Amino acid sequence: MKLMLMVAILACTFSLGLAADDSSPATSNVPGAEYPRIHDDLRATFRLKAPDAASVKVDVGGTTYDLVKGDDGFWTVTSNPLVPGFHYYALMVDGVSINDPGSETYFGVGRQYSGIEVPENGVDFYDAKDVPHGEIREHWYHSTVTGKWRRCFVYTPPGYDENTKKRYPVLYLQHGAGEDERGWGIQGRVNFILDNLLAAGKAVPMIVVMDRGYATRAGTPEPATYPPMGSQADPAARAKAFVERMRVFEDVFIQELIPMIDSTYRTIPDREHRAMAGLSMGGMQTCQITFHHLDMFAWIGGFSGAGNPFIAAPFDPSTSYDGVMKDAEAFNQRVKLLWLGVGTKEPERMYTGIQGFHEALEKAGIKHVYWESPGTAHEWQTWRRDLYDFAPRLFRH
Amino acid sequence: MKLMLMVAILACTFSLGLAADDSSPATSNVPGAEYPRIHDDLRATFRLKAPDAASVKVDVGGTTYDLVKGDDGFWTVTSNPLVPGFHYYALMVDGVSINDPGSETYFGVGRQYSGIEVPENGVDFYDAKDVPHGEIREHWYHSTVTGKWRRCFVYTPPGYDENTKKRYPVLYLQHGAGEDERGWGIQGRVNFILDNLLAAGKAVPMIVVMDRGYATRAGTPEPATYPPMGSQADPAARAKAFVERMRVFEDVFIQELIPMIDSTYRTIPDREHRAMAGLSMGGMQTCQITFHHLDMFAWIGGFSGAGNPFIAAPFDPSTSYDGVMKDAEAFNQRVKLLWLGVGTKEPERMYTGIQGFHEALEKAGIKHVYWESPGTAHEWQTWRRDLYDFAPRLFRH
Repeated sequence: MKLMLMVAILACTFSLGLAADDSSPATSNVPGAEYPRIHDDLRATFRLKAPDAASVKVDVGGTTYDLVKGDDGFWTVTSNPLVPGFHYYALMVDGVSINDPGSETYFGVGRQYSGIEVPENGVDFYDAKDVPHGEIREHWYHSTVTGKWRRCFVYTPPGYDENTKKRYPVLYLQHGAGEDERGWGIQGRVNFILDNLLAAGKAVPMIVVMDRGYATRAGTPEPATYPPMGSQADPAARAKAFVERMRVFEDVFIQELIPMIDSTYRTIPDREHRAMAGLSMGGMQTCQITFHHLDMFAWIGGFSGAGNPFIAAPFDPSTSYDGVMKDAEAFNQRVKLLWLGVGTKEPERMYTGIQGFHEALEKAGIKHVYWESPGTAHEWQTWRRDLYDFAPRLFRH
Repeated sequence: MKLMLMVAILACTFSLGLAADDSSPATSNVPGAEYPRIHDDLRATFRLKAPDAASVKVDVGGTTYDLVKGDDGFWTVTSNPLVPGFHYYALMVDGVSINDPGSETYFGVGRQYSGIEVPENGVDFYDAKDVPHGEIREHWYHSTVTGKWRRCFVYTPPGYDENTKKRYPVLYLQHGAGEDERGWGIQGRVNFILDNLLAAGKAVPMIVVMDRGYATRAGTPEPATYPPMGSQADPAARAKAFVERMRVFEDVFIQELIPMIDSTYRTIPDREHRAMAGLSMGGMQTCQITFHHLDMFAWIGGFSGAGNPFIAAPFDPSTSYDGVMKDAEAFNQRVKLLWLGVGTKEPERMYTGIQGFHEALEKAGIKHVYWESPGTAHEWQTWRRDLYDFAPRLFRH
């Protein structure tokens, strides 16, 4: 009896093993990976086996930590508490930035990068819940502008396949620089956010289109997606390259993407049922495209990105974007929603940029919503919250 | 004039730069990444910036190469000619296996891994071509068996949304160990293979369902996807764990996945219009599931995986799988297609395993197709070719 009890205690100790403290594997880990682990207070413990390395660091949440080597060849460190949400992070082995084999990777900063999901207490609006689920469809289309096949992703709401006569409004939703058309579906969890809003009756059923924010003219090579402006040292050349890239994307978007979507999906193909929003670079693209084509869009969102420092700086409502806001009353009547969001912990330049845009609109009498995400930086938790506030306001007539 | 010519020559030299030889960036590179590069003779050049590393290697195509450090801190090596197709590969920095920042990553070997696409001269059956394209849909469903939300991917053929009365046969197509439900859509290019076959009139329009090949009972933790049998040293325990995992998957598949697909998509929900195939572990799952449920399947494919060494070894047609093949004539009448494929360069154990299965079937008078992929190993080029041979044979009545 005593022996069996001892065996039981030993077995229990062994099976608890690594989980004996308050931590558990991050939900962003690959199956079976015990590290990284998240503690109750949102500190994270990182670990890597590297017996022959001279130095291992982790760069997460804006801080670099040195991992400490154990006798078993495993390096470990526990971070300070992390802000809830999704963070890209990198390990560094002898100075080389690497992915953590324990984590999933996500396309960001121009390459595949490790990511860690830090839970937010009591917040589940972006989780898979017991509600009807829409689909995210991978759709390929040929672009004459770029001379290439392009991939976009299309969220169709629950019921889309059953209600074969019903037509839907469309939100075009763009990623930021260094990311791509996969971002909103994977890091952003657009499907779960919409599924949950729809199940709660808080949003109008809509199609969401997530296109690739990069485009170059046919016959020209596709540049790196990061850094966003190319590597030219000359600011004027950078600005010129950026403006040109924005123009090519606008051509693809207006001449190819929207007609393809309207002929492929059961959309309501008019401006009152078409919205566009984007994050960071995608917010600038949104402003450029919607302000130049108000005949096509009535609902506009800029998430941590609005205006365009390269073609409309300083922003002046009376002249910028060909003076589309010159007549505030006319603009206010035409645009059903102009929505701006920013995280309170974003880099100073971004925060003041959006705030400046907001204040200029305010001063010019341009109706808009300005929203701040408390405690979050230039990152996906800000943009998930943005979408959660923005989407319910759409297509309310 | 002379000066302008010199400038032109210099500019030309500069713009060619890295591309002055016969190599070009692999198509699997992230946008803008110049390395890895593929040469005309299919050698590949790998490069990594690691000024502080003591050693950098690359493990590709079954060989490990040492990279050589240059004065600029970049390490470089050129491999021997690689076999055409998709290969997982890893760089090693001071003994740590890392992803190449220049390449996309792919879920394989139980984690996100670098991959390189090596072109095959004159072969384009898995490329995006100017033909109508189907969609790959990300679909989430709740599983009572596992107590979790599960993700599958569903290929719908071109025209699925237009022909809203048309119903389609279904191919269930499984990935291998260490991979997941994303494998066939990304590494396998199932959509382009089917699009091209359909455009050429070589296959019957069908829905393809790619589910997650892992499942554990509700309340039990999800183990690592690799190594495939768990980490138990005891072969009997490994076999037991594997068999149990196969059973749970079979339960999900039969009780949950198929009914969900048949109630969500416009399928023809009978055995004559339902096929199952899988690669490696997925081939074993296919044998287990279809042979146990011939009332549900009439078309069966094992790609580099058939039989099951843990529950039916040695394979004996008169007794294995509850004797389903005991009456060869009855089996031959019932099963419209039993298809087996293997690459000629697969590891000896796998090659002889499939060949042994084929020979046992032959001896027992069980009709089947046996196909070899010339020159390829246990890898995606074998399975792409398998699908290209297998899919056109399906649903021909």
